[in-house]
Amino acid sequence: MTGRPQALLVMDHATFGMQFKEPQLRRLRELADLGEPIVTADLDTARARHRLREAEVLLTSWGCPPLTAERLADAPRLRAIFHCAGTVRSFVTEEVWRRGILVTSAADENAIPVAEFTLAAIIFAGKKAPFLARDARMRRAVWSSMVHREDLSNRGRTVGVVGYSRVGRRVVERLRALEVEILVADPYATASEVSQAGARLVELPELLPRCDVLTLHVPALPATRHLIGAPELALLPDGATLINTARGAVLDTAALERECVAGRLNAILDVTDPEPLPSASPLYGLPNVMITPHVAGSLGSETRRMSESALDELERHLTGRPPRAAVTADEFKVSA
Amino acid sequence: MTGRPQALLVMDHATFGMQFKEPQLRRLRELADLGEPIVTADLDTARARHRLREAEVLLTSWGCPPLTAERLADAPRLRAIFHCAGTVRSFVTEEVWRRGILVTSAADENAIPVAEFTLAAIIFAGKKAPFLARDARMRRAVWSSMVHREDLSNRGRTVGVVGYSRVGRRVVERLRALEVEILVADPYATASEVSQAGARLVELPELLPRCDVLTLHVPALPATRHLIGAPELALLPDGATLINTARGAVLDTAALERECVAGRLNAILDVTDPEPLPSASPLYGLPNVMITPHVAGSLGSETRRMSESALDELERHLTGRPPRAAVTADEFKVSA
Repeated sequence: MTGRPQALLVMDHATFGMQFKEPQLRRLRELADLGEPIVTADLDTARARHRLREAEVLLTSWGCPPLTAERLADAPRLRAIFHCAGTVRSFVTEEVWRRGILVTSAADENAIPVAEFTLAAIIFAGKKAPFLARDARMRRAVWSSMVHREDLSNRGRTVGVVGYSRVGRRVVERLRALEVEILVADPYATASEVSQAGARLVELPELLPRCDVLTLHVPALPATRHLIGAPELALLPDGATLINTARGAVLDTAALERECVAGRLNAILDVTDPEPLPSASPLYGLPNVMITPHVAGSLGSETRRMSESALDELERHLTGRPPRAAVTADEFKVSA
Repeated sequence: MTGRPQALLVMDHATFGMQFKEPQLRRLRELADLGEPIVTADLDTARARHRLREAEVLLTSWGCPPLTAERLADAPRLRAIFHCAGTVRSFVTEEVWRRGILVTSAADENAIPVAEFTLAAIIFAGKKAPFLARDARMRRAVWSSMVHREDLSNRGRTVGVVGYSRVGRRVVERLRALEVEILVADPYATASEVSQAGARLVELPELLPRCDVLTLHVPALPATRHLIGAPELALLPDGATLINTARGAVLDTAALERECVAGRLNAILDVTDPEPLPSASPLYGLPNVMITPHVAGSLGSETRRMSESALDELERHLTGRPPRAAVTADEFKVSA
């Protein structure tokens, strides 16, 4: 590709407004020619189809509809898709790969806030902070008794990381600043790469009984549905805390609910299945469960880290440099 | 000092049981001679005074009574005090300095969990996680609206660190892993040391209006009482979060309460004034306030990090090496 390409942004308007503020728009205009409309989430209107026929590159984000063979038939000049968010699973189809279209993603950038949030959740879990905060109105005697509790400490704890994914790797990296033992379970990871990162690769059944904290970083795939179900939860020691900042469906919510209602396990859940949980879910009322509304991932200024990374990829592409974060058809099958 | 000294442990029994488990006791017995009783928190009994007369070194911790001139008159051989916790303010007196007794503290080790907890609190504050969790039972429309909120992000936030203390320094160090701007206010810090750490030293009145998050790391001294009062809180921008893991009295609780009740500021408080807060305090019920029962500091296995560090100091002393963390009379006046 030479010169300034015709570019179309495919995302919902609210996402466009969040990810393309003045600095990002200025840079985009320097790199590419933009027609009218600049941005759409509906590729089936006459105007959008007209823009698609010219487009050599797409910048996509949340709200991009599936790029089906029918829609791509309208995009003969399309050579590259720069995704301004994490997973491309919701809109990239076999036809994209068949056409040999370059696809890049900002999944690495999206992993940053998730790993940060998870680190915070792990530290707070070690101190039982979210659970103690639910009952902070304590008598003085109870308050004073905290000082001799053995279970409010992070040093020497074992953290189990399920999924040595982009997020899982970053969590391990950040955990190295703590004096904790880190165990990793992931069928695709190698013992040597995990050990070089300061952790130890074990099988899931070996990992679970040793965890003070279990954190999930696996993609939502048919193979990972309910990866952590009743039998796996039963292997966790009493008082362990489960953290889910990945996807709700990798965890059997009903099984977790039973363990949490019984008071045997604690949980910090940023994602649930379904999402949100029904308002009658007993998980809401439990002092040993903290639920946040899917905010661990990129929001606000964090989403511009992703659009800026997509603009970097566009610039690399236009100057003949290789992409830093191309998604391949193979990787597509096993990652988020 | 040559050979194995006579040592006495001065701390309450529960703290002794927590900080001196089998491995720490074994090491202590290798380094020193212990009489009977090994440990006491009451230096005024006949048995304790007998032990004090023999003692060349004390290992102190929580529950150690003030080492007054009267009590020290019973300790003619005392040369060194190895404190197994943070501040020595509650028991070290002028007489200790007059006698030239070596005092070491484990304040550096005690700073570790406080800094970890504070980092977690800062990350969660950026995502408003503790506050959203209080109202997690949201309608789907509200839940879905999170995705476009500008105020649930850590990237590019400004964190104000008041007090470039042991904990403050560690917080700055750990914050460097985040893409945040770090401002520090401390009359004893130099611009160059703060800037080398990746932060910027400013005056408190300049720091406050720029903070998305304000975290306090100053000791409780007469000069720091209500360092953050109504005028300082008024300088914080709307929606800022105040974090206190230091001491309750450095903050004017009544002034903070007014700001939080009004919904203008958020707070994460691990320490309060008084502590615990009266059960009728409105701070407990607010969705924008998280209160934990003074658990950020060393608890459980974290307290053994401090006793092990005191044993390191004892060993250094016995082998003629200089102490790593001696407390000096000068430092005593301005630090925690």
